[in-house]
Amino acid sequence: MIKPTIHTCLSPALLHLYDVSESVIVVIDVLRATSTIATALHNGASCIIPVSTVAECIERGKQENAITAGERDGRVAEGLSYGNSPFEYPPDFISGKKLVLTTTNGTKLLHMALDMGAKEIITGAFANLSAVCAHLKKQEKPVILACAAWKDRVNLEDSLFAGAVIENLMPYFELPCDSTKMVRSLYKEAKSDIFAFMKENNASHYRRLMGFGLEKDIRHCLQADTAPVLPYYHDGMLISWEV
Amino acid sequence: MIKPTIHTCLSPALLHLYDVSESVIVVIDVLRATSTIATALHNGASCIIPVSTVAECIERGKQENAITAGERDGRVAEGLSYGNSPFEYPPDFISGKKLVLTTTNGTKLLHMALDMGAKEIITGAFANLSAVCAHLKKQEKPVILACAAWKDRVNLEDSLFAGAVIENLMPYFELPCDSTKMVRSLYKEAKSDIFAFMKENNASHYRRLMGFGLEKDIRHCLQADTAPVLPYYHDGMLISWEV
Repeated sequence: MIKPTIHTCLSPALLHLYDVSESVIVVIDVLRATSTIATALHNGASCIIPVSTVAECIERGKQENAITAGERDGRVAEGLSYGNSPFEYPPDFISGKKLVLTTTNGTKLLHMALDMGAKEIITGAFANLSAVCAHLKKQEKPVILACAAWKDRVNLEDSLFAGAVIENLMPYFELPCDSTKMVRSLYKEAKSDIFAFMKENNASHYRRLMGFGLEKDIRHCLQADTAPVLPYYHDGMLISWEV
Repeated sequence: MIKPTIHTCLSPALLHLYDVSESVIVVIDVLRATSTIATALHNGASCIIPVSTVAECIERGKQENAITAGERDGRVAEGLSYGNSPFEYPPDFISGKKLVLTTTNGTKLLHMALDMGAKEIITGAFANLSAVCAHLKKQEKPVILACAAWKDRVNLEDSLFAGAVIENLMPYFELPCDSTKMVRSLYKEAKSDIFAFMKENNASHYRRLMGFGLEKDIRHCLQADTAPVLPYYHDGMLISWEV
């Protein structure tokens, strides 16, 4: 049997190199958009509406009677009510509600993939690692692990998550691209303690969030399977895939 | 003392993210342009003139009474006399001669860096690893390790060479970018036997060149310090920096 392929796209600036329209796209923004998306859905949000701009977020929030949230450069964006931390969305707050979200990198990448013709988009983070792997294994389709990075610059945490997915799915897929081998190598070195690896290597996003006093967020977002859910993009919204 | 920085640019498609005009740019195209450049200069070529197109290569070859060489997609380009293999340029052939060279990725990246305002460009490959490291250490300037990749796709061998440079220069530079940490991690895993690592991981360029029967070239290009010379771009030519 011919196995499907997994490619790893290390930055949105490289996405045009891949066959986006014929693959399952996994949008990865570990710190913190896709961790927060998984957490909010796991905690009962009815859906998450990813939007590109703050203005659109405010407008859609009014239309949908939804919570507006998002960040620019790591902080709550002006005009929005909530930020991009998984801790802002516990069950007693988010259950049954809609969340409209805009972030610097993650939601931007999702819209870029849509513009390039993506038909199947899910989001991934350590928070829902096993759910993502189980889904991809079952689908038997080509996969692109699309790292949101930071303003197009490659980052460690999204690359590490891609490496974790590869480590799980290697037996079931072909790995034709060198980026996939790089993230696997990175993950192998880091996996025994990912937080320590980020700290020792003084990762760019580690520095940025530590500067905002967000160590708790970083630690949480690097833990596996805290929010076992599969966010799936359908009709303008991320919803929880029924498994 | 404030240390200068090293950044690693994994693909030409990411070069615009870096401060090209204020850094020493190391153009890296291990398989095979920058290996061949180092070898030809080490074997006595008076200079190498990198050009973008095959037509330009032919034209400049006539003007300069030079050898014309280059490849497209890994093979000798039509209309040119020689290819992109270091073995084509032994001392008794190349000594005292000029070489006009055009390649799919390496010479293209060099011109891209020039267009972005680069003022200092050298070329690096395993063939001249120690010479590159000694030069960068001495210069005490910011450095961009610019991988030529393959048609903008990240590749293992250029990333591995960047990792080898980092491994040598870590004590003397700041490493603010996550790509630098990734290539270091990759090199740490591969360094005991880089050829075996390329083979085991079925690297994209390994496959491509093996398909042309070029195992000998791959092995040679992954060996350190076979051509201890520093190719330096000056006035339209790569010449050997006097050390």
